[in-house]
Amino acid sequence: MERHFDNELQNLKEKLVEMAEIVEEMIKLAVEGLKERKKELLQKVFDNEKDVNLRQIENDDLALKLIALHQPAASDLRLLVTAIKISSDLERIADQAVNISERGMDLLDEPPLKPLIDIPRMAEIAQAMVKDAIDAFVNGNSDLAHEVCKRDDMVDDLNDQIFRELLTYMMQDTKNVPRALKLLLVARHLERIADHATNIGEEVYYIVKGKDIRHHIE
Amino acid sequence: MERHFDNELQNLKEKLVEMAEIVEEMIKLAVEGLKERKKELLQKVFDNEKDVNLRQIENDDLALKLIALHQPAASDLRLLVTAIKISSDLERIADQAVNISERGMDLLDEPPLKPLIDIPRMAEIAQAMVKDAIDAFVNGNSDLAHEVCKRDDMVDDLNDQIFRELLTYMMQDTKNVPRALKLLLVARHLERIADHATNIGEEVYYIVKGKDIRHHIE
Repeated sequence: MERHFDNELQNLKEKLVEMAEIVEEMIKLAVEGLKERKKELLQKVFDNEKDVNLRQIENDDLALKLIALHQPAASDLRLLVTAIKISSDLERIADQAVNISERGMDLLDEPPLKPLIDIPRMAEIAQAMVKDAIDAFVNGNSDLAHEVCKRDDMVDDLNDQIFRELLTYMMQDTKNVPRALKLLLVARHLERIADHATNIGEEVYYIVKGKDIRHHIE
Repeated sequence: MERHFDNELQNLKEKLVEMAEIVEEMIKLAVEGLKERKKELLQKVFDNEKDVNLRQIENDDLALKLIALHQPAASDLRLLVTAIKISSDLERIADQAVNISERGMDLLDEPPLKPLIDIPRMAEIAQAMVKDAIDAFVNGNSDLAHEVCKRDDMVDDLNDQIFRELLTYMMQDTKNVPRALKLLLVARHLERIADHATNIGEEVYYIVKGKDIRHHIE
């Protein structure tokens, strides 16, 4: 019975890793499609959304089944509830990648406002945060979880910098406004992705260390 | 034992209602403070944030304790996991109210761009969605849950309308840009609040009807 539970738990963790890999790829495709102005990359993000949605439902069901069948001890129970929360965060990250792709599609109709440098950098950091947050969960690595949370500040700083730069474009010439606004929304979507990764990091830190850093992370 | 579980479950539901009431009040204060340009209302939103954060942790712990002690049947188990998800959504709604208050504070330093009509209307709808989503959970009312989800479209339409209107202000005169951008972010924050309420509605519909509308709501 114990052995069986451990196998099932391992299975759930692997499913979360798979789901995270798809979601990371969606972020990458969305921002690459935006930067390189390639419709086919943006389209792939939309194609992946349904898969992620189905996986969330499957992972939820699997975690609930494990709780109901094995009536796990407090620490395993918290782990399983965290898996459900992580699955929900991953699904919402996928939604943000879809939003970025939509903005990318809109921008294909217009000439580029500027070469994109900071947005791809922000995307790389956010994507790595998602990866590391899931790694931290799977390996029970509280240091990595804490480190993910700290990287959120870098993303916020980049977001402020992008905001200020785009504001100058808008102030320069009103005809820049619609394009600058779309890029500004992309930066917001990336910021939200980093927020979700941070939520995962905080949860993982809590289940490993038993200490809540959700609302007083230093 | 059964009776005890029912009482504890009722207690958890009441705690979620209390938490939701604080969160609804935060939305109201933030948008009223923004509209009426009253710093003391905006400040109250910040004061409430810590309380909501603590309540999330308490509600999580209570739900986990109930699962661990009573090893509930599948349907009650799903109810308890949903309670944990709802608590997390409410906490994120409170974060959005704080974001609105921050924008409100920024805007106090500048003359008003325009009288605010659509933003307060959007806030009212979003606030009612939160209230009704929680009511639907407490009373197991799938019709109300479904109805909450459908109202999300109204919020999205209002958001588009606000976006287009603010865009005209920005295109008219570049010196309108910074204020219009802040109002645009407020509308986004309200849209996210409505999204969280919709998430709750979808979860509630699922636990009552056993049918998933999370990814194909009509």
